[in-house]
Amino acid sequence: MTFKHIASFLLLITCLTSFSKEEQSSDVIKPISAENEKGLIKVAIIYPFSEGKTFDMAYYKTKHMPMVAGFLGSNLVRYTIEKGLASGIPDTPLPFMAIGTFYVKSLSDYHAAIGPNRDVIRADFANYTDITPVIFISQVIR
Amino acid sequence: MTFKHIASFLLLITCLTSFSKEEQSSDVIKPISAENEKGLIKVAIIYPFSEGKTFDMAYYKTKHMPMVAGFLGSNLVRYTIEKGLASGIPDTPLPFMAIGTFYVKSLSDYHAAIGPNRDVIRADFANYTDITPVIFISQVIR
Repeated sequence: MTFKHIASFLLLITCLTSFSKEEQSSDVIKPISAENEKGLIKVAIIYPFSEGKTFDMAYYKTKHMPMVAGFLGSNLVRYTIEKGLASGIPDTPLPFMAIGTFYVKSLSDYHAAIGPNRDVIRADFANYTDITPVIFISQVIR
Repeated sequence: MTFKHIASFLLLITCLTSFSKEEQSSDVIKPISAENEKGLIKVAIIYPFSEGKTFDMAYYKTKHMPMVAGFLGSNLVRYTIEKGLASGIPDTPLPFMAIGTFYVKSLSDYHAAIGPNRDVIRADFANYTDITPVIFISQVIR
């Protein structure tokens, strides 16, 4: 009977450990899961394509975006970078060269964080592009 | 000794079950994690804002997007919907009314899946909007 008890106890511990591990792994995915983006504010910085204009993706990815992301603090959920490949209609020009987006919890906190750093951010544009970006603010529905 | 064997066997089964569950749950999170979007192709269907034009978000979310997503099969990693809120510059018009995006593994598979269904997709536009969308294809860099 004693051995039976020990075996049952070991089984119980194993079960609890495996459940707590599952719990943990679902906690880890929360910040980056699609479900959690729902309701967030997305600020997209869109660089329209124009013949002869330039865009240095390496600088944008390693310097500019991390700098701006750093200003946003815990309001920032994640940020993305995409590189324009094509228009959906053959033989029509690429609409945009690149898009950078910030997923934030609060739009007013975003403005409050960017405001005092606007001049630094704008001054950095010249280091990677001669395109004037369009800014689009949206809400994640799904 | 027989009971010991049974107990060991049960422990082994429990361990294997818990590991396979973890394996499964990490499989489940793969398609929606940000890290796994890197390198994917993103097809954005962008609805430019124009005064007096309409867009039925409820229909778009519950009927149109699920229909198109259904055509894409296992090539589709996930799809998103966002609703335009504002331009980044005060007192300038909203650039876009809404954006729908499909994150896919292969652009050629996307075209192959959409091609035969193009007429059905276009015919459905009238059920939710009178805006002609712009299509933008990009690659997820980060």
